[in-house]
Amino acid sequence: MHRIEIVYCTRCRWLLRAAWMAQELLTTFEREIASLSLCPGDGGIFEVRVDGAAVWSRAADGGFPDIAELKRRVRDRVAPGRPLGHLDRSDAGPG
Amino acid sequence: MHRIEIVYCTRCRWLLRAAWMAQELLTTFEREIASLSLCPGDGGIFEVRVDGAAVWSRAADGGFPDIAELKRRVRDRVAPGRPLGHLDRSDAGPG
Repeated sequence: MHRIEIVYCTRCRWLLRAAWMAQELLTTFEREIASLSLCPGDGGIFEVRVDGAAVWSRAADGGFPDIAELKRRVRDRVAPGRPLGHLDRSDAGPG
Repeated sequence: MHRIEIVYCTRCRWLLRAAWMAQELLTTFEREIASLSLCPGDGGIFEVRVDGAAVWSRAADGGFPDIAELKRRVRDRVAPGRPLGHLDRSDAGPG
């Protein structure tokens, strides 16, 4: 069971996208997630962490994750080897 | 700064209402909340905890909280004495 955190900048008003991604991850990885925490931050932060390790950082990765790419990165930590269906296809594109 | 948890039954499909309440609380108590965690559970659980203490439990309180009542209970722990505007009026009713 894993712990996920999404830290988002409140002044940038990124709660809605953080909450959307939270629901996507909780739906896809329902049995692997012990808790998904939404954490208000500032300074333009948008970071997704699995068990404390950043799998997406706006500062390092540039911008926001495509939801398919985010699920692949989370999958690699919480359920490595599990197929994600169409999200794994190289021609899947975003979404 | 406070930690809030919402534990919800996945088999009952209560993620959406848990995520909605999460966003309501994060919006109202933006500066008081360090993290708001969504925690998948089972057995019909729906429980809201502030710093580990239950402020709403479906088992004990019966059913789901009115969002105004939930905000009052959370307010009493994270920002006691702060007015919540129309949510504090006795004639406010639910919402």
